[in-house]
Formats: sequence, structure tokens, C-alpha cells
Amino acid sequence: MVAGGFAARHLAVVGLGLMGGSLALALRGCADTITGVDKHPETLHAAIQRGIVDEATDDLKQGVENADVVILSAPVRAILQIVNGRIGAYLRSNTLLVDIGSTKEDICTAMGRLPIGIQAIGGHPMTGKESSGIDASDGALYHNRPFVLCATRRTTPAARLRALELVSALGAVPFEMDAHRHDQAVAAISHLPYLLSAALVATVDHEGEQDDAVWNLAAGGFRDMSRLAASDLDMMKDILTTNTQAVATQLARFRMHLAMLESMLISKDEAKLMELLQGARAARMAWMHKREGKA
Amino acid sequence: MVAGGFAARHLAVVGLGLMGGSLALALRGCADTITGVDKHPETLHAAIQRGIVDEATDDLKQGVENADVVILSAPVRAILQIVNGRIGAYLRSNTLLVDIGSTKEDICTAMGRLPIGIQAIGGHPMTGKESSGIDASDGALYHNRPFVLCATRRTTPAARLRALELVSALGAVPFEMDAHRHDQAVAAISHLPYLLSAALVATVDHEGEQDDAVWNLAAGGFRDMSRLAASDLDMMKDILTTNTQAVATQLARFRMHLAMLESMLISKDEAKLMELLQGARAARMAWMHKREGKA
Repeated sequence: MVAGGFAARHLAVVGLGLMGGSLALALRGCADTITGVDKHPETLHAAIQRGIVDEATDDLKQGVENADVVILSAPVRAILQIVNGRIGAYLRSNTLLVDIGSTKEDICTAMGRLPIGIQAIGGHPMTGKESSGIDASDGALYHNRPFVLCATRRTTPAARLRALELVSALGAVPFEMDAHRHDQAVAAISHLPYLLSAALVATVDHEGEQDDAVWNLAAGGFRDMSRLAASDLDMMKDILTTNTQAVATQLARFRMHLAMLESMLISKDEAKLMELLQGARAARMAWMHKREGKA
Repeated sequence: MVAGGFAARHLAVVGLGLMGGSLALALRGCADTITGVDKHPETLHAAIQRGIVDEATDDLKQGVENADVVILSAPVRAILQIVNGRIGAYLRSNTLLVDIGSTKEDICTAMGRLPIGIQAIGGHPMTGKESSGIDASDGALYHNRPFVLCATRRTTPAARLRALELVSALGAVPFEMDAHRHDQAVAAISHLPYLLSAALVATVDHEGEQDDAVWNLAAGGFRDMSRLAASDLDMMKDILTTNTQAVATQLARFRMHLAMLESMLISKDEAKLMELLQGARAARMAWMHKREGKA
């Protein structure tokens, strides 16, 4: 073990989709053994075949009982089921348990009820790909991307440091914040945009039923604005149902901003309309500038 | 002149931004002479220096009076000013006049009032780039992209065929439709998405004033959904003010779809929520599938 670097004797990754598979690939050199846990036999087979994990099982107990680091990589409610289920009885004392679910408040609360001795911390890497599944796994998926860490009642100072080392080993950039604040932020930048994308596609689809020219003419702007509408529904269902209040708040704020634009447009108050649009343009350009400066 | 191919003795391109510059580059081999007209001396200089045009002038009359093909490439209201202004007196009889403004009804109506003998047709290529200006010009910008043609009262059958040849020479795919139908369609697929993008950025900006974590965590989903908010404001102002009614109609429909999603979310009607989201997902995937099949 390199001093200060992340190292695991036995890493278990529960859930071998794109995110879990990519984690296992990225941590290949930091763990003596990696066990993959998944309920799909073909996923386990692929993970072994591609050398992403050393061992594979569909049995949670068998997969995690000898691990010193366990990462839960699944839709939010599947993670909640695991944390609220028997895993507390399966884990050795002092095991680091990290999840990478998309909403954090419910999961971190559940983690806080695990047996004392389990070192549990919530995580959320802000990354992804359009393709999903173990076959899309990519060891560089986390490089330079934000990785949120949310302490729970089961996060000791040592667990926090170990989680920060794990994030570094992935090449990601850690952001520590409380779970509530995380959920508010992602409601604005991720869950609201998803709903807007879906509602836009529904609107265009409705127009397309009357005139299919709509679909023929749709170009790059629509492509970008509709991409999120194709997100994985199992993941989105869990996100929306575990972050409903924050999403509803952001929807209400969005409605207000859209209504202002609409009222200025219809009343032909061009100066005011341009002022609002200019503000949005400047905010977006400032963000991109900062982002590109970092990349 | 190759039979069936587009050829111009003297092509004038009025407005040498990204779109006009790219047009001139793409039509280089089809015209004996290309004249560029622009009010910015540095743009005229760059166009000559880079060999995009043969001649350059800031004088509209001088630029178009000897042309047999004139393309107007500017924001919508600048095109309207030209068409409603003196150009009808400058052009030779039988000159083909094509515009590439983003909304078509006002421009096509104005074209219909030009002197008889001028062959005027509205156009709208569904293409673009994030960068703008003559320096971003790209002869392949129109390749395989939809190019809408809208007949006016000054479009003879011969003019229509010549415009179709011009679109082919650009490597674009022609779609003929009336101006009103075009404006309805682009309100749904382009102008509505722009307003949603701007309102989203305003919402996130508002949230960011309270917690700058929002900006740190914003990732690929937000990047795509906010891109249109950075669109050129001169162009968008002209689009929104010449297509207000169609945009307002699409905004009302969008609001309805978003309200349905919101009500199902808040009332926890998961089955119905998933049904709507599934419909949007399927529509988006079907469109992408068709689009990629064509590319």
C-alpha cells in the first residue's frame, strides 16, 4: 500500500452496470481482490470474462462478507433495500461502505441506522454515458468529474479520509456536503432538466402527430434538449420518488422564470425580454468558461 | 454548366457570418464570381483574405446589381429591412433571390411584394455551430442537413427548380413547405427549446446565488440543456419577435405536458408518471434511430 493512496484488501462492487463496472476497472490496481455482485448471470459472466472482477456472485452475503470495502452501485431504491436489509449483519466491523446512488438524503439516513462499527458514507459521482451496462464500462469514466461525499451518522474521521482516497484513486474531484444540500442542488441541475426534456419531447411528439415535418426538421438544438428524455427509467423513477419535494420546488421556480419570459414576449416588452435572456446567456457562458478552465 | 447542377454567373452573398461564409465556401465551384456584402470592414477583409469571396463591398446596390443569384444571410429583421427596402430596385429581372432567415412567414410575405420578374424564394437551413462569424465558416456546414424552401408569390416553377439545385449543391436535403407551417414547426423544435434552456439557466442561477455547489456539480445533462441559452441574442430577438404567436402556442402546450408530469409526481401516481416518461423516451429514441439511420 502506497502511503496516502487508496488500497483495499478485498473490494466488493454490488451492482455491475456502467457505473459499477467502471468503478471496478478504475480501482483494479488498488485492490488485491475484487468481487462483483449482480443478480444477472450474463452480467457476472461478462465481468469475469472481461477481467473486470476476480470473483462474481449473485449472493449478497457471499459477495460482501469478506470485503473491507463495499461499493453499492444501483438505482436509489435498490440501494435503500440493501442498506435497510440484511447487509448490516453481513459486513465485518470497520468495513468501508460507500454507495453511489443519485439522491442522498434517504440513503444517508438509512446508513445512519447500520450497526456501529460499519463505516458508511454516501457518494454521488456526477458522471455517466449514454450507453449503459457492464459492456460500456470505462475506467476513465470518473476522471476529473465531481464526486460528492455525504457524511452519515456512521462516518468516522478515518472513514471520511478513506473515502476521499477512494475518490482520488478514481481520478475524480471530491465535494463534501450534507445530503440535504446535495439533493437540493441536483434537483436544480439534473432532475428538473430531465423533466423539462421529457415534457419537451412530449410537446414535439404532440405537434408531430399533426405534422411530421416537425421530426424531419428537428436538428442539433432539439437533439441536445431531448437527450435526457432517453435516460434510464428505472434510475429516474427512483430519483424522482426519493427527491420529490426538492424537484417540486425547482419546478415551481422554473415555472416562474418561464412565465416571466412568456409575459415579456407576448406583451412585446423587448428590452426586458432581452435583459433576462442576456442574463441567462452570461450565466451559462461563465459556467462553461470556468468548466473549460478546469478540464 | 453541368446539366441539372447549380450554376451562377455572379453570386452575391449578403451577410458574411458563419452561415453566409459557409454558403460562399460551399458554392465556390458553382459560381464564376462571388461577391460578399457586409457592413463590417474587418469581415470583408477576412472574406477576401481567406478566398471565401472574389469581391467584397459594404454597399448593397453595388454588391447585388450584377448578380444573377443573391442570398440574404442575416438575422430575420435585417433580411426584412433589405427585402422591404430598395433591393427590388437594384436587382436585375430574373435574378434568383433566396434568404436563409430563421422564420419564414414575414419574409416570404415581404418577398411576395417585390417587383414581378424577381425570382424570390424563402429558405431555412437547419444547421449551425456554436462558434459564429466568418472565421468559423465551413463548406461542409450544410451537408446532409435539412434545408427548408418556402415558395412566395414571386416563386416561378423555374425559380423553384433552381433553388432545389442550389440546395443540392450545398449537399443539403430540401424540404418544401409553406412558410406558416415552417414557423409552427420550428417554434416547437427550436424556439421553445431555446426559451426552456434560458429559463433553466435562470432557475439554476437563482439557486446558485444561495449555494454555489450547484455550479460545481452541474455536469453533462446541464451542459446539453443549457447550450441553447448561449445562442446569439440578435438572432434570437428577431426570431422571437417574428414568430411570437407560434412560440406562445408551443409554450402553452409545453406547460400542459409539464403540469401533467408535476401533478403525477406530487400525487405519487407512479404508474401514470412512468407511462408519460416512457412515451417521451420512446419518441426520442425513435427520432434518434431514424436520424442516425439517415446519417
